[in-house]
Amino acid sequence: MSIAEKLAGLGHRLPEAPAPAANYVAYQRMGGLLVISGQVSRLPSGEMLAGTVGGSATAEEGRAAAEVSALNVLAQIAAATGGEIAAVAQVVRLGVFVASAPDFTRQPFVADAASDLIAAVFGPAGRHARAAVGVAALPGGACVEIEATVALVQP
Amino acid sequence: MSIAEKLAGLGHRLPEAPAPAANYVAYQRMGGLLVISGQVSRLPSGEMLAGTVGGSATAEEGRAAAEVSALNVLAQIAAATGGEIAAVAQVVRLGVFVASAPDFTRQPFVADAASDLIAAVFGPAGRHARAAVGVAALPGGACVEIEATVALVQP
Amino acid sequence: MSIAEKLAGLGHRLPEAPAPAANYVAYQRMGGLLVISGQVSRLPSGEMLAGTVGGSATAEEGRAAAEVSALNVLAQIAAATGGEIAAVAQVVRLGVFVASAPDFTRQPFVADAASDLIAAVFGPAGRHARAAVGVAALPGGACVEIEATVALVQP
Repeated sequence: MSIAEKLAGLGHRLPEAPAPAANYVAYQRMGGLLVISGQVSRLPSGEMLAGTVGGSATAEEGRAAAEVSALNVLAQIAAATGGEIAAVAQVVRLGVFVASAPDFTRQPFVADAASDLIAAVFGPAGRHARAAVGVAALPGGACVEIEATVALVQP
Repeated sequence: MSIAEKLAGLGHRLPEAPAPAANYVAYQRMGGLLVISGQVSRLPSGEMLAGTVGGSATAEEGRAAAEVSALNVLAQIAAATGGEIAAVAQVVRLGVFVASAPDFTRQPFVADAASDLIAAVFGPAGRHARAAVGVAALPGGACVEIEATVALVQP
Repeated sequence: MSIAEKLAGLGHRLPEAPAPAANYVAYQRMGGLLVISGQVSRLPSGEMLAGTVGGSATAEEGRAAAEVSALNVLAQIAAATGGEIAAVAQVVRLGVFVASAPDFTRQPFVADAASDLIAAVFGPAGRHARAAVGVAALPGGACVEIEATVALVQP
């Protein structure tokens, strides 16, 4: 089954893999490891889910943004692998950056919207280690940015 | 010798490995590599060492929090490996996030409390690369969060 | 060709590899992988390119700082490998932390000054994945800190 088909069954649409914002690549490979650049919470329409959680954005808006970042991570995984779920041996780590007011401390609640989606797509192969932190600001005013490390099934 | 025995000799007690706060795993393996999720500065009692260094917390309080985060990292290493020091080939990297007021710039002083403990436990195998940064906010109001990458001795 | 020679042709001078600020190592190896500690924007003279972009520093000052951090990353790569460009199989990932005011959102513009230099030195082997985020504060008041993961050519 493909990532796109699995997402469709979950009520989501796999976006096009976003082009890098600048002079880097969206992902890089290293042996059986796939390292995915930070994916911001930008919709396929180009609209950015922007804001600072605990300030201009609510925690629920943060969760919506985390889900969009996770969809963009999935798009990069699909672009790098051909899109079959079976190509992923293990999602190893997500790094989740949440634009946060200094007194907002529920980053795990926000990040779970991404982790839930990754786990729903890959099952046990989607169970990942994670670091979630609250940062001052993100590119383009994004509410959330997520990077990922993924172990691929070796051919 | 076990990590718990070594820590006892250093005047510390190895905590239980904290359960993940949300829908992720405390660590994930990838070949001989162990990737440990961000560990916040929560005591075994459940009390969080909270605060923003340079604001509601002093640098010394930050160091106490970094040590607690490091103990939780050690607890995860012990849970993943069986707890023998000899199972660790090399602590490769620590990522240290310090909740910081914008004018607090002594993150290395805070992070050293963690690095010193890791080095004391593992000796040369504890000499790690590190990135220490000051962030806006951390989960549960934690003063410090630390993630780690560890190379394991292959069986 | 050496990294130093290539940099000279680009109008830059390879600095001495900065000593770690504290109890960690500047880089650690793990098989064919080189993990480089966060390098702050400190000049060989000892002067720190300091400030918060969008506050006490402009975006252009941020770019100058990112370039200095990238030069320090290159110095660590040279120290770890002997300094030949051909020793690097692939720069896999840069983690770019920009000290940012909460309303500064052009971290990619700042980080590109580092990515451009890495790409100019290594060519296709310098095309890296990247996460760029805006943080509250950095060690010593640095404007930029950059960490790196590099795959080495195996002997």
